[in-house]
Amino acid sequence: MHRTHTCGELTAAHIGQEVTLSGWVANRRDHGGIIFIDLRDRYGITQMVFDPQDNESAWKVADTFRSEYVVKLTGKVRHRPDGQTNPALVTGEIEIITLNAEILAESKTPPFEISDHTTANEEIRFKHRYLDIRRTKVLENIKFRAIMNHFTRNWFTTQGFTEVQTPIFTVSSPEGARDFLIPSRLHNGKFYALPQAPQQYKQLLMVGGIDKYFQIAPCFRDEDPRADRHSCEFYQIDCEMSFVEQEDIFQVAESFVKDLIAGVSPEKHIRENKIYRFTHKEAKNLYGSDKPDVRFDLHFEDFTEDFRNSGFSVFQGAVATGGVVKAMKLENVAMSRSEIDAITTVAQANGAKGLAYIIYEAEGPRSPILKFFSEAEMKALEEKLQPKAGDMIFFGAGEYALVTKVLGAVRVALRDKYNLADKSELAFAWVTDFPMFERKDDGTLDFEHNPFSMPHGGATAFDNPEPTEIHGMQYDLACNGYEVLSGSIRNHDLKALVKAFEMVGKGEEEVKDKFGAMYNAFQFGVPPHGGFAFGFDRLLMILKDEDNIREVYAFPKSGKAEDVMMNAPSVIDDADLKVLGIEVRDEV
Amino acid sequence: MHRTHTCGELTAAHIGQEVTLSGWVANRRDHGGIIFIDLRDRYGITQMVFDPQDNESAWKVADTFRSEYVVKLTGKVRHRPDGQTNPALVTGEIEIITLNAEILAESKTPPFEISDHTTANEEIRFKHRYLDIRRTKVLENIKFRAIMNHFTRNWFTTQGFTEVQTPIFTVSSPEGARDFLIPSRLHNGKFYALPQAPQQYKQLLMVGGIDKYFQIAPCFRDEDPRADRHSCEFYQIDCEMSFVEQEDIFQVAESFVKDLIAGVSPEKHIRENKIYRFTHKEAKNLYGSDKPDVRFDLHFEDFTEDFRNSGFSVFQGAVATGGVVKAMKLENVAMSRSEIDAITTVAQANGAKGLAYIIYEAEGPRSPILKFFSEAEMKALEEKLQPKAGDMIFFGAGEYALVTKVLGAVRVALRDKYNLADKSELAFAWVTDFPMFERKDDGTLDFEHNPFSMPHGGATAFDNPEPTEIHGMQYDLACNGYEVLSGSIRNHDLKALVKAFEMVGKGEEEVKDKFGAMYNAFQFGVPPHGGFAFGFDRLLMILKDEDNIREVYAFPKSGKAEDVMMNAPSVIDDADLKVLGIEVRDEV
Repeated sequence: MHRTHTCGELTAAHIGQEVTLSGWVANRRDHGGIIFIDLRDRYGITQMVFDPQDNESAWKVADTFRSEYVVKLTGKVRHRPDGQTNPALVTGEIEIITLNAEILAESKTPPFEISDHTTANEEIRFKHRYLDIRRTKVLENIKFRAIMNHFTRNWFTTQGFTEVQTPIFTVSSPEGARDFLIPSRLHNGKFYALPQAPQQYKQLLMVGGIDKYFQIAPCFRDEDPRADRHSCEFYQIDCEMSFVEQEDIFQVAESFVKDLIAGVSPEKHIRENKIYRFTHKEAKNLYGSDKPDVRFDLHFEDFTEDFRNSGFSVFQGAVATGGVVKAMKLENVAMSRSEIDAITTVAQANGAKGLAYIIYEAEGPRSPILKFFSEAEMKALEEKLQPKAGDMIFFGAGEYALVTKVLGAVRVALRDKYNLADKSELAFAWVTDFPMFERKDDGTLDFEHNPFSMPHGGATAFDNPEPTEIHGMQYDLACNGYEVLSGSIRNHDLKALVKAFEMVGKGEEEVKDKFGAMYNAFQFGVPPHGGFAFGFDRLLMILKDEDNIREVYAFPKSGKAEDVMMNAPSVIDDADLKVLGIEVRDEV
Repeated sequence: MHRTHTCGELTAAHIGQEVTLSGWVANRRDHGGIIFIDLRDRYGITQMVFDPQDNESAWKVADTFRSEYVVKLTGKVRHRPDGQTNPALVTGEIEIITLNAEILAESKTPPFEISDHTTANEEIRFKHRYLDIRRTKVLENIKFRAIMNHFTRNWFTTQGFTEVQTPIFTVSSPEGARDFLIPSRLHNGKFYALPQAPQQYKQLLMVGGIDKYFQIAPCFRDEDPRADRHSCEFYQIDCEMSFVEQEDIFQVAESFVKDLIAGVSPEKHIRENKIYRFTHKEAKNLYGSDKPDVRFDLHFEDFTEDFRNSGFSVFQGAVATGGVVKAMKLENVAMSRSEIDAITTVAQANGAKGLAYIIYEAEGPRSPILKFFSEAEMKALEEKLQPKAGDMIFFGAGEYALVTKVLGAVRVALRDKYNLADKSELAFAWVTDFPMFERKDDGTLDFEHNPFSMPHGGATAFDNPEPTEIHGMQYDLACNGYEVLSGSIRNHDLKALVKAFEMVGKGEEEVKDKFGAMYNAFQFGVPPHGGFAFGFDRLLMILKDEDNIREVYAFPKSGKAEDVMMNAPSVIDDADLKVLGIEVRDEV
């Protein structure tokens, strides 16, 4: 037997018992010829004492211990001497006077310190992830992920949802991101694709009458990695329901996030304990984002009409060419010249020529552009924004999409610079009524979002002569500036679905060809249905205050989509590729 | 709102209430101008009545209903007329007199009857799986899978195991079956591989100190499909523990299966409520299988010594050339000539020249070979097998591996022919002590099983001068003739692991090269550890009495590894392959 107890459970109640513990040598101290070892396992730390007076042979073995050795120790539990107890540890009242010591495995010196204070870079940590996992912070993320998985599955099961594992080997789909492909050995020249999401399968389950489906689904998209997007694989809390309307779905998602946070992250709170709602248009108008961070205000006011005839040619010109003028007020800051320059750089990086501003000082407003403003324009600013001494106003003028993008980016940069958001707070906001179509530069239409969504107004909405004004029953849920959920009420009317594809220049044949299973299925009694998918990892990242999504995986891919521990991807022998009917291309 | 209740919940307690139900038209009957519809959803069936006297407009809509239309019906709950109640249904006491009817979606005539009595073949069913799922039997399998998933995760979580989702994109590994590969877009010329099992990752988790890990893990092997092996993807209940011995692991696995069956399949029982144990050698000797079906006896007795000097040259010759003679007794059958021929065909298909037998009749034994047997030989048979009138004895003679294989196959064929096994019974048997090595025809050694297993006797066992006598601490669990679990205590001693690879002609460089992460990790304090993996789908198949594993997936692949509903795998445009740095090979 390797142990009678773990390293995290012995207390004063065990004093006098003989116990055996196994674990890692985390720390060693020598005091007056006595050796003290902190023995660590995932449950905790226990102080082991080796006194040559008591047991010389155990002491001799312990004297050979080095950091991260795996050892098995038998001894008697005793009270720590007065003044040496550690109330921060469960085991802080006791220590073990060791009678027998055995080395189960030695260890070389680790390439970095097994400590939350390690300064090792990501590559070294990921290459030796099996050591990185021994650090409390990483272990806690792994444990939290398990808890969140468990909570999520229990929640949906309790609510009557049926978990279905949909196929991981499926067919390539023309919509969305790029697919990962798998060459087929049995069918040379053909390829499976990994699912970007179980979208078609879950809709087919609704046709099959499953009624309420969920799955924590692995999803695969061949996209370049980002801080909030893990490469290769990620997980979705995927959900679909029949015979529901949008409001029913909102209720399920809202109940889930509220229960989840109360259940697994009680140290966090939901701002005002409510889920805000904005239409896509409102979110863009107010925050310049379809995933606004509403932990702080800093919203935009519109001044287009106020500056239509302005003496400031930049604003006047913007309005004259169909653009807008917007502004937002940052309260109570004193920005230096260089800070203003830094923020201006953010605006420029997002396509603006510059960033107009006004500083309100005790002596009154100050700005290089003030001289162009009329009294009425100043009054409009004061009425809508009510600036006080110490505040600043930032402007955006030009094409609507550009202005909202620029001010949206400036808003986020100001948040980070001035800590405008409370880190313990979670601000959830529905963003609804996404436009179904966008007009491309060449004047033709394309789907803005999910082609399978039902428009507001139902199937007849597609008769609208201005298609960009058709809004889908599609919605995202934003949290602290991240998109954490996306979903829609699906278009279950096959004729209307074909119409939607025709509007972007594709026809019934295309639907039949590319979405054959859905096309067939929708002819055999399809119920009204809708659903959503939460980004599991992204939600986890937010709940654990991680800035990089890679930290929430047990074995993450690097920023270059590599597994640096396993050396994936790797070169494969041509003989093995031959069996699969493929070869590596020569050309560059 | 699409419904106030589901089709499975209204009872006499609801009489008088106005309700709205939505569902599928499962059945329509007309009696004296009144229309009766069975409205179906996944929760049940409710009888809807349309009486033109009561509400003509609803009746008129209902008159257009056809099978599998999706409809929304509002009406009043009332008691069924006397004599028309159906105690088999939850809703059997009531019916709804319908006041409003709406068609939500029409349906073409389904290509097969939505009924458990359908005679549709697998291809038609799988092509229209969204319809197949509406059949109770398929729905029940999907629901059962969800229940089993849920039970399993709860069980392991309650027992202190941490769920970890290991990567699905990993590196190709040289051991085991063929890997599925994924060409990398970011690293042209390189490939990810899908994991055949999370074997290396779970061992690395143990090095990382996770202590007790589990996962219902998707696994991927490019093998040809079989009745008990789904193509492309399948699931394992994967588990690993540190600081354990083989017996600790057996306790966990045994508790799990006992609790699982009591929890999800209470109609089944475990034979003698115990888990049998056989060494690999015993299982081969007694049943000719490393996954014996022990729901019935029909074991082999050895007669090698008894026939060493036999007058029957076939037996004598087999023993003289180092082979064996084995026999088993089938009780109380009367096999016809053609039945004996059929069983002989089984023996021949497994490599035997024929199948020797004796029939014990009331008048005494009868067989073409009796004339060659001595009195002592007949006595040996009677002593060991104690045949009675009505029994039969079957013989195998020749090389050990062939005899056990042939008699093992005959034993299974006899089980199927004579229903020797109780279908409600589950007979679990550990098969332990697998040989570590096998000798190939050219005299060199190869791994028989998992190279990462610890041998019995520990690392020094590799010093045994006869390597085929080294037995691993590796074990399978058989149930009703299927292998449902495989596992081992791992070899955590890096030097011994290298030694094992050297014995099969591979060296330290090979271990370093092919299993680099393990090679590195095992130098930094690796705990003793071991584990197992249950075949989730195979266990489910057994619990649901399915003969084909395809039936336990929501969306199965066909026997040709195709998704006939989605048309996977499919041809991909060369432009998309170019991005991935590959092309389809021209040569055949």
